[in-house]
Amino acid sequence: MKITDMHVTPIAITDPPLLNASGLHAPYALRTIIELVTDDNIYGLGEVPGSVATTASLEAAREVVVGQDPFQLNAIQAGLMERFGAGNEARGESPWDRRRIVHVFSAIEVACFDIMGKATNRPVCDLLGGRVREQVDFSAYLFYKYEGAGGKLAFSTDPQATGWAAARQKAALDPAGVVAQAQAMCKEFGFKSIKLKGGVFPPDEEVAAILALRDAFGPGTPLRHDPNAIWKVETAIDAGRHMKGVLEYYEDPVRGQENMAKVREALNIPMATNMCTTSFEDIPGSVRTNSEDIILSDHHFWGGLRASVELARICRTFGRGLSMHSNSHVGISLAAMAHLAAATPNLTYACDTHYPWQSEEVIAGGRTQFADGALTVTNEPGLGIELDRAMLATLHEQYKLCGLTERNDEIEMQKVQPGWKFQATRW
Amino acid sequence: MKITDMHVTPIAITDPPLLNASGLHAPYALRTIIELVTDDNIYGLGEVPGSVATTASLEAAREVVVGQDPFQLNAIQAGLMERFGAGNEARGESPWDRRRIVHVFSAIEVACFDIMGKATNRPVCDLLGGRVREQVDFSAYLFYKYEGAGGKLAFSTDPQATGWAAARQKAALDPAGVVAQAQAMCKEFGFKSIKLKGGVFPPDEEVAAILALRDAFGPGTPLRHDPNAIWKVETAIDAGRHMKGVLEYYEDPVRGQENMAKVREALNIPMATNMCTTSFEDIPGSVRTNSEDIILSDHHFWGGLRASVELARICRTFGRGLSMHSNSHVGISLAAMAHLAAATPNLTYACDTHYPWQSEEVIAGGRTQFADGALTVTNEPGLGIELDRAMLATLHEQYKLCGLTERNDEIEMQKVQPGWKFQATRW
Repeated sequence: MKITDMHVTPIAITDPPLLNASGLHAPYALRTIIELVTDDNIYGLGEVPGSVATTASLEAAREVVVGQDPFQLNAIQAGLMERFGAGNEARGESPWDRRRIVHVFSAIEVACFDIMGKATNRPVCDLLGGRVREQVDFSAYLFYKYEGAGGKLAFSTDPQATGWAAARQKAALDPAGVVAQAQAMCKEFGFKSIKLKGGVFPPDEEVAAILALRDAFGPGTPLRHDPNAIWKVETAIDAGRHMKGVLEYYEDPVRGQENMAKVREALNIPMATNMCTTSFEDIPGSVRTNSEDIILSDHHFWGGLRASVELARICRTFGRGLSMHSNSHVGISLAAMAHLAAATPNLTYACDTHYPWQSEEVIAGGRTQFADGALTVTNEPGLGIELDRAMLATLHEQYKLCGLTERNDEIEMQKVQPGWKFQATRW
Repeated sequence: MKITDMHVTPIAITDPPLLNASGLHAPYALRTIIELVTDDNIYGLGEVPGSVATTASLEAAREVVVGQDPFQLNAIQAGLMERFGAGNEARGESPWDRRRIVHVFSAIEVACFDIMGKATNRPVCDLLGGRVREQVDFSAYLFYKYEGAGGKLAFSTDPQATGWAAARQKAALDPAGVVAQAQAMCKEFGFKSIKLKGGVFPPDEEVAAILALRDAFGPGTPLRHDPNAIWKVETAIDAGRHMKGVLEYYEDPVRGQENMAKVREALNIPMATNMCTTSFEDIPGSVRTNSEDIILSDHHFWGGLRASVELARICRTFGRGLSMHSNSHVGISLAAMAHLAAATPNLTYACDTHYPWQSEEVIAGGRTQFADGALTVTNEPGLGIELDRAMLATLHEQYKLCGLTERNDEIEMQKVQPGWKFQATRW
């Protein structure tokens, strides 16, 4: 079996004005969809965070990928590493691994797994060791946000919307707004764990929101707070003391492994990260400093599904728990996340997903349905999804029209608050 | 697809009187062969070190395994962990992980991979990420030994034997004998790396043997010395100084991670282990102490092929090299080792194998052939081997007749040297 073609399609999906430490989500989130086609007419799908640069990298990967057997993941990866000079590529300034090889391979590997599953008549989870759970739990991912639906209605709302689609449009800028958002989201999707993306308002306001969630949902509800690493160590310790016994985990209150370790030692609250331990190169430092209790995996950032299984083994080996990180995404990434989670025994925390914030979809049949806060992983071959080519074309047109070329939350924020600047440590 | 039957067959294979730190190999080595059969009449093969206890464990595993889908490795493993109370099982006194779950699952997982490969028309290496090398290099595994062919000719020889079969019968009790053995083995198999199993004679005699090998094969030849952890730290440091620049790696000269770290720090020679870091539970200690440079993986002792791939990732993550350990075995284990090695990018050292010391085989077509010190991994589905049922029956009869129930090199040695005792630290 050979890969004979590779289609790379950047898309833009409507995204509401969600706030975080880096600023504000643009009216559209960018993703890049890849489709690999084989000589026996099987196609496989992959999805990664989008940007002009990522699309260009994927285009540049085509000459390596076409002609390969989709089972030869090691050879494809080696070819891509050579293509991108991965040995010399820097991982970049951000907390995440920005090397092209990581994103490119993660998209291509998922598409290869989709093909392998279809070729062998097996769901992807069965190619990762088989399912250990029928249902994969996800968490409610709350955001502070401005009023607005995103897209063309960036800061305005669709009055026709009902249910969660209406609630999703509302502002959430204080504890009451956060609780209302949580109630609407949990009612719609049945989520049982709740995460608040923080790092937006002064710490005492965010602590108040967490305590309000505790009051609204009851003391046993697993709550997570993620200040996006912009707090000082002393701030994080002080805030953490107010949330002790309330948080399921405390996610990246501070920047860097050393700081995380200080907070962790002071508080004795489970601490999670997708910012200080974000690649295999960070693992020795994590072990040395004891920077966190739980690693939020993300197959887009760790280099694919097999790499994520290997990360899971490392977590077991070093006594780390395992949860899963998310960005704005559509159903291809969601399916890949669900198959991975279904096959990972020690992924015991409900996974993050931005999915409720999106309304568009590129997979046939429309939006994936959650039941009781969980997805039931399909037994269909591969990822168990098909591409809606009309929607893909529509969302590609939307990409071309929206004019965005990369995610830049700071610039979006400056449109609302002129002169606003990202601060690595704010409070 | 369901597993409908599981056949467990202990066998005994002729093994010459090889010496090591634990004593002497018995005239027969024990292996247990398993065969899983599915409802669509695919069978898969596995092989593990044999003993009455392991056979009993495998028999006890049948009720868990039969009825399972061979792709559901996680579920099979979870079932076996429950069956064997793996959470409470101790790993035992030996340097290796003796938990039943480890051996049982490794045998069953390999058989499942053989089935998965046959069911999907793919070689096992393709289900582990695909091959990164066409040829898998193996090393010449030298032993001090008494004269004798093993089996019924325990301490005597077959005068009809020729070539390596004749050379294999000869005693090797000094540097000249070791060099002659190496020359005959390398001539027959084409091996380019050479390992001496030591821990048998006083250190200066073994150092002399290594230096004699260097003189005979030339200074560039990769040589390994394995004193089986029975040297004192000072002894190992002193002997190591005489072998510096000669050894490719120095394998387990001393016992335990702390001692290994001391020798490593003193010598600055690459150090390898299959005795101080032998399970995932040992990895944190390895990282803390820097006990070795190279880990010798062994899918029978680390819990299967996927676990070995995960170990490979850990080795990359922590800057450890990767080689492969062996025990006396037949062609099922050899095929599994070769598929694993073919799919492991950072397995850059030639693998150990006892295979040249064996003469019998349970796979159809007889003994696997090496060319230029390497195996070419087949593209046939699964492990690419078929069972020779007549030979299996013959070797099972041999098992019943030989009277051995477990490996005990100390008792065998006492038959030659009455009163001989294993010493954990001898010199």
